[in-house]
Amino acid sequence: MSKVYVIGTGMIAFGKYPDRTLADIGWPSLREALLEAKVKPDSLDAIYCGTALGGMLAGQRVAKVLGLSGMPIINVENACSSSSSAMAQAFNAISSGRFDTVAIVGVEKLTKFGGGTLPLEAEDWENRQGMVMPALYAMRANRYMHEYGLTAKQLAEVSVKSHDHGALNPLAQIRKRVTLEEVMGARPVAGPFTLWHCCPTGDGSAAVILASEKIARQVKPDAVRIAASEVTSGKYTNGYRDMTTAELTVRGSHEAYEMAGIGPDDVDVAEIHDAFTIAELMYYEAFGWAKPGEAYGLLSSGATSLGGKIPVNPSGGLLSRGHPVGATGMAQAVEIVRQLEGRAGKHQVEGAKVGVTHATGGGVAGFDHGACSIHIFTT
Amino acid sequence: MSKVYVIGTGMIAFGKYPDRTLADIGWPSLREALLEAKVKPDSLDAIYCGTALGGMLAGQRVAKVLGLSGMPIINVENACSSSSSAMAQAFNAISSGRFDTVAIVGVEKLTKFGGGTLPLEAEDWENRQGMVMPALYAMRANRYMHEYGLTAKQLAEVSVKSHDHGALNPLAQIRKRVTLEEVMGARPVAGPFTLWHCCPTGDGSAAVILASEKIARQVKPDAVRIAASEVTSGKYTNGYRDMTTAELTVRGSHEAYEMAGIGPDDVDVAEIHDAFTIAELMYYEAFGWAKPGEAYGLLSSGATSLGGKIPVNPSGGLLSRGHPVGATGMAQAVEIVRQLEGRAGKHQVEGAKVGVTHATGGGVAGFDHGACSIHIFTT
Repeated sequence: MSKVYVIGTGMIAFGKYPDRTLADIGWPSLREALLEAKVKPDSLDAIYCGTALGGMLAGQRVAKVLGLSGMPIINVENACSSSSSAMAQAFNAISSGRFDTVAIVGVEKLTKFGGGTLPLEAEDWENRQGMVMPALYAMRANRYMHEYGLTAKQLAEVSVKSHDHGALNPLAQIRKRVTLEEVMGARPVAGPFTLWHCCPTGDGSAAVILASEKIARQVKPDAVRIAASEVTSGKYTNGYRDMTTAELTVRGSHEAYEMAGIGPDDVDVAEIHDAFTIAELMYYEAFGWAKPGEAYGLLSSGATSLGGKIPVNPSGGLLSRGHPVGATGMAQAVEIVRQLEGRAGKHQVEGAKVGVTHATGGGVAGFDHGACSIHIFTT
Repeated sequence: MSKVYVIGTGMIAFGKYPDRTLADIGWPSLREALLEAKVKPDSLDAIYCGTALGGMLAGQRVAKVLGLSGMPIINVENACSSSSSAMAQAFNAISSGRFDTVAIVGVEKLTKFGGGTLPLEAEDWENRQGMVMPALYAMRANRYMHEYGLTAKQLAEVSVKSHDHGALNPLAQIRKRVTLEEVMGARPVAGPFTLWHCCPTGDGSAAVILASEKIARQVKPDAVRIAASEVTSGKYTNGYRDMTTAELTVRGSHEAYEMAGIGPDDVDVAEIHDAFTIAELMYYEAFGWAKPGEAYGLLSSGATSLGGKIPVNPSGGLLSRGHPVGATGMAQAVEIVRQLEGRAGKHQVEGAKVGVTHATGGGVAGFDHGACSIHIFTT
């Protein structure tokens, strides 16, 4: 099995681009990543595109703008983990020795739906009864508050930290700080969530170029390596009886740690799936950075802020950088690679050597079936 | 690299199931394939789902019905080659040694769109101007007729052959023979096509279980092997100047032949992408079974009918078995595996040892960018 390296990254500033087509949202990231990797179109063995709602042949439509054709182009859908699941397929293909140089692009245009929650599937009866994502996470937040005595004010601190980070990131959709009072006083969405507890909808794209050891040695000897690539499925929580444990992420993170041969304490920086404030706290625990019920203590200690022991979501995360569903996984990968290469700019985590990305979701089927993809990157 | 074998197949009769959910269309095939392979859910390393229009987390929704959870579930979209592209990802994952036992299910519910051509993407201006699939293929048919003197009556013979085969297949959507007069006298769609020149819309699912050499030796020592697994992208034709050459399939088939170490003459049976009558003839040439302009000669000789030298689409193909977009690739794989195992029933190709599947399409972006996936199976 060949080792797998990242030799290029590209990303556009996330935001709202209602007048651009999906292809026009996607191609600039792919082009930037290709230029950064100094890859010529001829030497690209495959393109994987992650999109949840981009429609048929999204990758082909993006590639067409750049005149890229003739290689396998594969579109992967896995809700919020679409592009990270796409990267996992590229990882397998390089590991197996089949491909040497592969591009992955994540792209989404949520503005085409005109706002609100995402389109529903007729068979998803929980969703149709009102269990849309904000409601689902709000229910989990209420349970967590009940179980562990977390207050709404403490929960709001997650949002403040996210926006502190996002304000430093020129690619973030929301680039301004918010105060605790602003978070708590904002328009209510689903108690205890106000608007600033929820990630925004928007458009975006991000891309990386992966390479085999053979290629990476030639073009970028110091390239960041992907030490673990993991996709799993399962319940979004442990069910109604234990809503505060993110079962999928617990299992996925353990498998990823094992693959990379590391443990929770070895992680220097992480981009995790903070679609709502409570998610960030639950995932601290799922990743083993805090014990059950103790996530707020980790947050309030400053450990997960820039300058702390393990900064989480230095990009601003989903809450501030934005969450165009299929693009999120690649935005996380771009952020972590740039962090490990020491070129993250104002939100740089000094000396980071091991980084984690985590995208999980279950846009349909409510609690019952979700997807989760976790990657571990090392210098 | 491990060799890859097929240890189970499953498929429902294609048709119109407007009252079933996508999940309820999908699970019976997956269950049948798992039972045939005698695979316990615990030993399934991953599930790949191919769907073009099934919506988010289609594979998870199908798996949920059967209580399958905890393994990676990956949804792959590549228009008409969605499930064959999904199988190619599973092939890579087994080749690399990462997985031993993987299920692939293709599933689609076209009846949810209420008939007619498929939903368009706003950016696909050719499609919006009327270059929908029947129009695109009709233009190619007219050009072929102009170039090579093919008549509408000769073209109609493709449909007659297809229905002769489909009438023998209990899983076909259209299980009745049609006469040449009936084909020519049917409702016009896009000249020279009448209704019977065009594949029907409908719903369906099909599934296969792939295994590594290690597992196949234990559970099915005589399992059919996948000798080549190929996905490519490119132009749907050679452009407006040479509409009669299927560039994608020419290139893809050559790559697949090379990977399998065989040539056109070694193929005993094939399931190819006859979405419209002209497609079957053009693909005879693309696969090297006939020289340019000579496909009709091959057809009229009886070589591609049951009992001939290289029966093509013994299942009835897209024209008669049906074409629920994302399910087609797996339906082809199920058919070819059962053919090579000698259990295809009334439409058995006697003594078939090498079989080909071929799914290609470009639902959007008209001529410019399509996907194509070709697999070669051997006893």
